[in-house]
Amino acid sequence: MIEPYVYGDYIAIKALENGVTVIGLTRGKDTKLHHTEKLDRGEVIVAQFTEHTAAIKVRGKAVVYTKFGSIETSD
Amino acid sequence: MIEPYVYGDYIAIKALENGVTVIGLTRGKDTKLHHTEKLDRGEVIVAQFTEHTAAIKVRGKAVVYTKFGSIETSD
Amino acid sequence: MIEPYVYGDYIAIKALENGVTVIGLTRGKDTKLHHTEKLDRGEVIVAQFTEHTAAIKVRGKAVVYTKFGSIETSD
Amino acid sequence: MIEPYVYGDYIAIKALENGVTVIGLTRGKDTKLHHTEKLDRGEVIVAQFTEHTAAIKVRGKAVVYTKFGSIETSD
Amino acid sequence: MIEPYVYGDYIAIKALENGVTVIGLTRGKDTKLHHTEKLDRGEVIVAQFTEHTAAIKVRGKAVVYTKFGSIETSD
Amino acid sequence: MIEPYVYGDYIAIKALENGVTVIGLTRGKDTKLHHTEKLDRGEVIVAQFTEHTAAIKVRGKAVVYTKFGSIETSD
Amino acid sequence: MIEPYVYGDYIAIKALENGVTVIGLTRGKDTKLHHTEKLDRGEVIVAQFTEHTAAIKVRGKAVVYTKFGSIETSD
Amino acid sequence: MIEPYVYGDYIAIKALENGVTVIGLTRGKDTKLHHTEKLDRGEVIVAQFTEHTAAIKVRGKAVVYTKFGSIETSD
Amino acid sequence: MIEPYVYGDYIAIKALENGVTVIGLTRGKDTKLHHTEKLDRGEVIVAQFTEHTAAIKVRGKAVVYTKFGSIETSD
Amino acid sequence: MIEPYVYGDYIAIKALENGVTVIGLTRGKDTKLHHTEKLDRGEVIVAQFTEHTAAIKVRGKAVVYTKFGSIETSD
Amino acid sequence: MIEPYVYGDYIAIKALENGVTVIGLTRGKDTKLHHTEKLDRGEVIVAQFTEHTAAIKVRGKAVVYTKFGSIETSD
Amino acid sequence: MIEPYVYGDYIAIKALENGVTVIGLTRGKDTKLHHTEKLDRGEVIVAQFTEHTAAIKVRGKAVVYTKFGSIETSD
Repeated sequence: MIEPYVYGDYIAIKALENGVTVIGLTRGKDTKLHHTEKLDRGEVIVAQFTEHTAAIKVRGKAVVYTKFGSIETSD
Repeated sequence: MIEPYVYGDYIAIKALENGVTVIGLTRGKDTKLHHTEKLDRGEVIVAQFTEHTAAIKVRGKAVVYTKFGSIETSD
Repeated sequence: MIEPYVYGDYIAIKALENGVTVIGLTRGKDTKLHHTEKLDRGEVIVAQFTEHTAAIKVRGKAVVYTKFGSIETSD
Repeated sequence: MIEPYVYGDYIAIKALENGVTVIGLTRGKDTKLHHTEKLDRGEVIVAQFTEHTAAIKVRGKAVVYTKFGSIETSD
Repeated sequence: MIEPYVYGDYIAIKALENGVTVIGLTRGKDTKLHHTEKLDRGEVIVAQFTEHTAAIKVRGKAVVYTKFGSIETSD
Repeated sequence: MIEPYVYGDYIAIKALENGVTVIGLTRGKDTKLHHTEKLDRGEVIVAQFTEHTAAIKVRGKAVVYTKFGSIETSD
Repeated sequence: MIEPYVYGDYIAIKALENGVTVIGLTRGKDTKLHHTEKLDRGEVIVAQFTEHTAAIKVRGKAVVYTKFGSIETSD
Repeated sequence: MIEPYVYGDYIAIKALENGVTVIGLTRGKDTKLHHTEKLDRGEVIVAQFTEHTAAIKVRGKAVVYTKFGSIETSD
Repeated sequence: MIEPYVYGDYIAIKALENGVTVIGLTRGKDTKLHHTEKLDRGEVIVAQFTEHTAAIKVRGKAVVYTKFGSIETSD
Repeated sequence: MIEPYVYGDYIAIKALENGVTVIGLTRGKDTKLHHTEKLDRGEVIVAQFTEHTAAIKVRGKAVVYTKFGSIETSD
Repeated sequence: MIEPYVYGDYIAIKALENGVTVIGLTRGKDTKLHHTEKLDRGEVIVAQFTEHTAAIKVRGKAVVYTKFGSIETSD
Repeated sequence: MIEPYVYGDYIAIKALENGVTVIGLTRGKDTKLHHTEKLDRGEVIVAQFTEHTAAIKVRGKAVVYTKFGSIETSD
């Protein structure tokens, strides 16, 4: 069995305040919230797109690191 | 089973005002709206093209990050 | 099942006035209009070529972002 | 089923006057006209080579964007 | 069925006078003329190599755009 | 059997204080914590995304080395 | 059926005098002349290597465009 | 049998003091220590990620060479 | 049938005097001469390695164009 | 049979004193020493990772050439 | 039948004196001389590695063109 | 039958004195000497890694050309 999961593109998010919310949205016909991760100020998460996650939404003061550069929320 | 979903190209969108609308349009014979995501000022979404989403339309003041650079709506 | 749809090249279009028309032309033996999307001033659409769309025609004042650079209509 | 259609190279054409003609020529043993698209001044079309189109001919004042740069007709 | 036709390399030709002749030569054991396209001054054609065309010959004043740069005939 | 595990992208983390926590989050439908690694000041861990790990969260003063550059937590 | 013919490398030849001869040599065990194309001054031919052509010989005053640059015959 | 093991990414570690510990962590559901290698001052080890090793942890004064540059522990 | 012949690397040779000899040596267990091509001053040949040709030897005053640059014989 | 062994990444080691030890560590569940090569001052070895060797440890004054640059032991 | 022979890497050798010897060594378990080619001053040979040749040894005053640059023998 | 042997990476060795020894070490479970090639001053050998050779050791005054640059033995 080939498991190419591990090739998924990744982004990184760094919280600039407490309570930043990183929301994983589903890939299927219905685009639903399937996971919410809370980050406190200074925490960093590095996350891949997966079989289940096709979009990632960030709420709260944070920096989102993508292939387009780093994007600051809430400026 | 090979699941190449995870390879889909992604773009990023940052809302510059409340109520920015990110609309996913379907890939099939009929191009229909299949998902609407609301972003408030400063929120960022990173979204892949998927089996279901072949076009993404952005309404409201926002920056769209693509491989062609960043595109400001409403300037 | 391999679904390489998601690899389709994409372009972006930004409307510079109300009523910009983005027209999807079919891929088959007959090249027919299969979808029309209306954009208002400042709206941006990011769209892939798909199994159904082999050509995209833009009417009205807009910027079309392609791998050849950005092309302004109506100058 | 693998559908690699979507990988076809694309070019872009911008009309510099009304009535520019974009002609798709067939790929088969016989090279025949199979589609004619009329563009008015300022309109842009982005078009892939397809299973059916192996050559594209442009008549009238226009810019053709290719991997060799942009080519002005009629100068 | 995989149809890799669409990947064929392409060149572009711009006529600098009326009556430029673009001649497609066959790929088989016998190299024969299989198509002749006439271009008038200023017309541009973008053409792929195909299953049937292995060589393209240009007669008359024209510019041929290739991966080696642009080549002017008749200088 | 092909085992492409070994191709997984990797990141590196360096602890800048005692008690830095590196948390592996699962890839499945449910995104759960599946491993916690404690790092003392100055320790470095180099870790791949795997069949089981789709996201890595870092708590405590540390540097996270990613393809987007090095990201300092807690600044 | 996969037909990778269309991927063959191509070169270009521009005649600098009348009567330039472009000779296709066969690929088989015996290297024989299989096609001769005559070019008049200023004519350009763009030709792929094919299943049948493994070498191309140019006689007469011409420029041969290859991946090594342009080579003038007869200088 | 295809054995792609040999393609695994590698890192290098150089000990800057005696007793540097290089710890291999397992790839499976449980992330466990599966090997410990002791390095004396000045020794260098070049190690691949393997079917069994998904993470490498370094304790003690050392330089870790990765695709992100060289990372000094314990500074 | 896949015919990858057409991908063979090519070199180019330009004769700087009459009677330059381009010798194709066979690929098999025995390395034998299988073809000799005579070039007159100024003639250019562009030749691929093939199923039958694994080495090409050049005698007489000529320039050999390779991926290492152009090599003059007899200097 | 496909034998991709020959693609394994390689490193080089140059001994700067007599008695440099190059130790091959096994790839399996147990990471064991499987080969020891002694180098005298000035000798160079160029070695691939293989089906059997997943890590290479160098003892004694030497330079290890890797994709991260050259690493001197014992400085 | 796929015949990837033609992809073999090639090197070039230019003799700087008469009697340069280019020796092909076999690929098998036993590394034996299988071909000797004599070059006179100024002759150039371009030779691929093949199913039968895994090493090439050059004796006499010559320049060997490789991907590492050009190497002069006997300096 | 696919024979990818010919893709093996190669290195080059130039002897700077008589009696330089190039030693091929085996790829199997046991790493044994399987071939010794003697080079006299100025001779150059270009050698691939093969199914049988996973490491190459050089004794005597020589330059070893690798992807990491040229390495002089015995300095």
